Amino acid sequence: MAKLDKAEVEAGLLALPGWSLEAGDDKWITRKYRFGAFLGAIAFVNEVARLSEAANHHPMIAIDYRMVTLRLTTWSAGGLTPLDLATAAEFDAAFERQQAQP
Amino acid sequence: MAKLDKAEVEAGLLALPGWSLEAGDDKWITRKYRFGAFLGAIAFVNEVARLSEAANHHPMIAIDYRMVTLRLTTWSAGGLTPLDLATAAEFDAAFERQQAQP
Repeated sequence: MAKLDKAEVEAGLLALPGWSLEAGDDKWITRKYRFGAFLGAIAFVNEVARLSEAANHHPMIAIDYRMVTLRLTTWSAGGLTPLDLATAAEFDAAFERQQAQP
Repeated sequence: MAKLDKAEVEAGLLALPGWSLEAGDDKWITRKYRFGAFLGAIAFVNEVARLSEAANHHPMIAIDYRMVTLRLTTWSAGGLTPLDLATAAEFDAAFERQQAQP
């Protein structure tokens, strides 16, 4: 998959509120998700794991109590590709589904 | 729970191979665990979540593909306490149980 240039990444990020280029590093996009409880954060990470295993594209994941930080890059391309933007959108949809649960 | 001084922490760490004081910061102990597959790392994180929720003492967790990094401190004490050492031992036991699975 072809690496995107910075302008292409920034255009793609317009459709991904909450995601941004990592400061000082154009190879990563990142987003933080906040939850009401630790186990909500863990449930989200399990869904992220399921989706990323299915796509064979895995984010770096940090769980800081009730906050989850995801970071995406495409190692094989040495930077960001459309796969990162598509996977980010999938994680956002999973977050929205979880937030919509009663 | 009373904060341990550095000598006490170092004595406690003798019983916790793999755990160490974080470089340049005496308030955290940390260990990295390596797994054969991403989903093994995720299974471990779920067990860590279960144990830490039961103890009401939660580590910072990072999942970098097949490597899990845990970091422990006791916020209320402003440093490390016996609870951190006990919880670290519980996580190690969980890791050993998982490694022993066929």
